[in-house]
Amino acid sequence: MAVVLPFDPAAEIDAEPSLEGILTLVRADMERVNALILSRTGSEVTMIPEVAQHLISSGGKRLRPILTLATADLTGYAGDGHIKLAASVEFMHTATLLHDDVVDDSEMRRGKLAARMLWGNEASVLVGDFLLGQAFRMMIEVGNMRALDILSTAAVVIAEGEVAQLAAAKNTATSEDEYLAVIRGKTAELFAAACEVGPVIAGRPKVEQSACRSYGMNLGIAFQLIDDALDYGGSRAKLGKNVGDDFREGKITLPIVLAFRRGNDEERAFWKRCLETGEINEGDLEHAMKLLARHDALADTVDRARHYGAMAKDALGLFADGPAKRALLDVVDFCVARAR
Amino acid sequence: MAVVLPFDPAAEIDAEPSLEGILTLVRADMERVNALILSRTGSEVTMIPEVAQHLISSGGKRLRPILTLATADLTGYAGDGHIKLAASVEFMHTATLLHDDVVDDSEMRRGKLAARMLWGNEASVLVGDFLLGQAFRMMIEVGNMRALDILSTAAVVIAEGEVAQLAAAKNTATSEDEYLAVIRGKTAELFAAACEVGPVIAGRPKVEQSACRSYGMNLGIAFQLIDDALDYGGSRAKLGKNVGDDFREGKITLPIVLAFRRGNDEERAFWKRCLETGEINEGDLEHAMKLLARHDALADTVDRARHYGAMAKDALGLFADGPAKRALLDVVDFCVARAR
Repeated sequence: MAVVLPFDPAAEIDAEPSLEGILTLVRADMERVNALILSRTGSEVTMIPEVAQHLISSGGKRLRPILTLATADLTGYAGDGHIKLAASVEFMHTATLLHDDVVDDSEMRRGKLAARMLWGNEASVLVGDFLLGQAFRMMIEVGNMRALDILSTAAVVIAEGEVAQLAAAKNTATSEDEYLAVIRGKTAELFAAACEVGPVIAGRPKVEQSACRSYGMNLGIAFQLIDDALDYGGSRAKLGKNVGDDFREGKITLPIVLAFRRGNDEERAFWKRCLETGEINEGDLEHAMKLLARHDALADTVDRARHYGAMAKDALGLFADGPAKRALLDVVDFCVARAR
Repeated sequence: MAVVLPFDPAAEIDAEPSLEGILTLVRADMERVNALILSRTGSEVTMIPEVAQHLISSGGKRLRPILTLATADLTGYAGDGHIKLAASVEFMHTATLLHDDVVDDSEMRRGKLAARMLWGNEASVLVGDFLLGQAFRMMIEVGNMRALDILSTAAVVIAEGEVAQLAAAKNTATSEDEYLAVIRGKTAELFAAACEVGPVIAGRPKVEQSACRSYGMNLGIAFQLIDDALDYGGSRAKLGKNVGDDFREGKITLPIVLAFRRGNDEERAFWKRCLETGEINEGDLEHAMKLLARHDALADTVDRARHYGAMAKDALGLFADGPAKRALLDVVDFCVARAR
């Protein structure tokens, strides 16, 4: 089922957006982060490195730690602390993924079997806890109280967002604002924290810290919205999971929120049956795709993502032009362009 | 099934050991800790306080935060930081319980239905993550780097111990030393950390920090061994769960380690069938109790606990006599005497 998502024709004039710029910018630092990640998943309890590395080595883009390194570069940080903070951010993310898979009963993650399918839910919960603990240890070693505050608050907000999503799950009456509040918590908060700690350890003024935080927050929202759209329109290779997984799991994402509100009573009854009662029959996914298309729900989700992407780019306005700023702007274009 | 566990006749001369002394010692501080616990489980996401307070209000003894308060008192701490550290310790413990129930598929906890039975595994995992995050936030607010280091290391060691137990689960060949390593991680480490941070924030010398840590570590081991024995011999009211739960879950605890090694081939085949393959029939628990009695496995487990209890008491030798020291010594007697 190939659904071509719409995109801004103006964007076509540019070359295909890529992560090349930021990967070049942080290459040397990222090698140190990767070595640190490898060493801090080590344990005499062999199941820990096995489970952790199954996920960590499965080809995630490591976007979050890259953002920490790039914002540290952007704000002229000269020390070593950004390496450990970047690794902490990736561990926090990995811990969240391990726990999410248990919460969602997911079978696949990044195109591989989810860890819980190989080692069980127990191992996913506990290795997640281990990684979260290691994340805190690394942050504490850096010793910057403000960075500690930001990242520990993010850990709380993420968990809160996940519980909120659980409570809102299968509720088709979720409004767009409510949905945005959920993804601010479960996705965008970590992007925001990852970007904020760069200027914080660089000792830059509050206005630069806020600018980087705002960049990360809006990028995170855009990133999640594109993910939501891709779930109904991407290729399996791009997704690392199956098209329609959100549908089968009864997840209320923005495309659904829009289609539900724009639809008629009969359509709303369809969404309720599939997503609230979980009664999904042959052909229902195809019908859902048709309804999404009828109401431009995917196109408008991508449009909303583009809006947050624009906010992310504007947040960096006060920084001088240079390779770090250009690389961070490219990341936004890359994330939004994934939907093409 | 009433199994009378043996106890040291010499102990009978004393009055029934109780927590009265330590509860009186920390009463005023503990009220502040309880208020803090209540306020920090608050969230607009109503499921979070519901789940957290179901467990927190279910009548745990709050032994770990009490230990933090008492060791702070013992070492002359005059500030406010011990309140937040004590609440952090309790949140770390509560998070572990929520995750453990998911890992163990437990139905009961402290005589009530486990949270996961009421709100599902998902909520238990995520609210645990929330509480762990809140624990770190409170520690960070206290701002003592050494205390942060101790508690974050404990979080890692606890998770590592839990994974080690998972890997060793259902392996009747587990040796006593291997089993001790597991319970040092999963139980005693948090006792040790809870006791160590008292003298740390009081700015006391290393020798006092180590003494308190050693007290906590050995008390934690004794506490867990008595728990292991009670699982085969306590009353349901005392346990907050059913007699034989460990047996039905295939948990290898010290009574089993001892009985397995002291038994003959036929007995070992019985333990393997029940605990490794999980094939448990009518009458098997009763037979297990008989084998434990035949080899003095429960009596000797309590004896081992008494040994660690004695080490815990000796660890406090260098502190001057006074209400705090006496209260901490009483805690050891109380924990060991639970097996009566």
